[in-house]
Amino acid sequence: MPAAHLIAFDADDTLWSTQPHFDQVEARLLEIIAHCGEPAHLTEQLNAVQRRNMQLFGYGAKSFMLSMIETAIQLTDGAVTGHDIQQIIDLGKDLLRYPIEPLPGVVEVLTELRRRGHRLLVLTKGDLLDQESKLARSGLGDLFDHVEIVSEKDEATYQRLLSRHAARPEYFVMIGNSLKSDIIPVARLGFRAVHVPYHANWIFERVEPEQLAGLDFHTVQDLREVLDYLL
Amino acid sequence: MPAAHLIAFDADDTLWSTQPHFDQVEARLLEIIAHCGEPAHLTEQLNAVQRRNMQLFGYGAKSFMLSMIETAIQLTDGAVTGHDIQQIIDLGKDLLRYPIEPLPGVVEVLTELRRRGHRLLVLTKGDLLDQESKLARSGLGDLFDHVEIVSEKDEATYQRLLSRHAARPEYFVMIGNSLKSDIIPVARLGFRAVHVPYHANWIFERVEPEQLAGLDFHTVQDLREVLDYLL
Repeated sequence: MPAAHLIAFDADDTLWSTQPHFDQVEARLLEIIAHCGEPAHLTEQLNAVQRRNMQLFGYGAKSFMLSMIETAIQLTDGAVTGHDIQQIIDLGKDLLRYPIEPLPGVVEVLTELRRRGHRLLVLTKGDLLDQESKLARSGLGDLFDHVEIVSEKDEATYQRLLSRHAARPEYFVMIGNSLKSDIIPVARLGFRAVHVPYHANWIFERVEPEQLAGLDFHTVQDLREVLDYLL
Repeated sequence: MPAAHLIAFDADDTLWSTQPHFDQVEARLLEIIAHCGEPAHLTEQLNAVQRRNMQLFGYGAKSFMLSMIETAIQLTDGAVTGHDIQQIIDLGKDLLRYPIEPLPGVVEVLTELRRRGHRLLVLTKGDLLDQESKLARSGLGDLFDHVEIVSEKDEATYQRLLSRHAARPEYFVMIGNSLKSDIIPVARLGFRAVHVPYHANWIFERVEPEQLAGLDFHTVQDLREVLDYLL
């Protein structure tokens, strides 16, 4: 890899952990509305509300807060108290300000890729301000040349990205934990993608095995293996 | 103006109307919580909650929904019903999908500026997905070369913008209705700004007259006057 590449990193659950924090908040919501049914039923309702709202609300903590509130209203037939809803809002606010720690190997890998002369980019979807704030809290901001926060990571997004940053496909690499957002659209375009699985997965990012059929991409168990792969 | 310029347009209340829709929703909220006090007091509370949340939530309809919900909880000491909160959420959802009509003169001005060979850019702050959706609903998308949705429009944002789009300061113009976001930071940098006042102003965008002291910018009463100004 002699030429300078444009290397894009997903943020949530690639650079720092996110899903476990959302899972904790969801667990607290289930406690608040525990009197409304079995946990599996409550989760199912929450997912149904989220699925319905996603097109209008997009991704991120504020969307999640609003969907949690709607779920609590629906499951209690409107009897949920203002006190409980305030608790839900406060849980959501914590999601917008928890301390961000880079995952193991992140600083090392970014520093080394920069040293080798590559351009590094964060490519993330979600709330604009929240994603910017997480990057700032992570302390990783200075290691990146560019930050792109988008509403969706699909093939059109990746094509726009390459054109905007004047990157040739053969000198582009996407690295991330989400098969749906970081790997499949990139591999479909014939660009290089590196999958770094994370132990927690968001239900709306899960993919069926057949969606991977015919696609080429590389998988590492630890982000640090990227350094050898991109040698 | 012989050389191709980069001409940036604010979106909300410059390309299409937004504030009146938020004002209508706020009026409906005041009806829902009318039993909690005088309208002036309720508005004051809502503004206080919004001010407190803004740093965490950012701008846009979802932030507004969450602040309306918190206001209703606080003003009723938690006695607001789930039914009322669902009404607030539904009002907020309408803010995310109302039909977008370009303001008078917008299509004419954009079309003519393109014809003259200028690069046109939308520069807006707010919810990422919501702003993209409004641009799509407006039918104006194809008239713009670039779309930039940012979390704040301050001097740093404008400097980044010029560098990103390789625009020289003397070939850049910002056009918008907000003195705070579209005019002051641009004029402070010594770049060209054109103020197109709109009849409705968001309280958090209001500026004191002394903030304009010493700044140069151009004001038009109708967007179409921009064509003569930029001749």
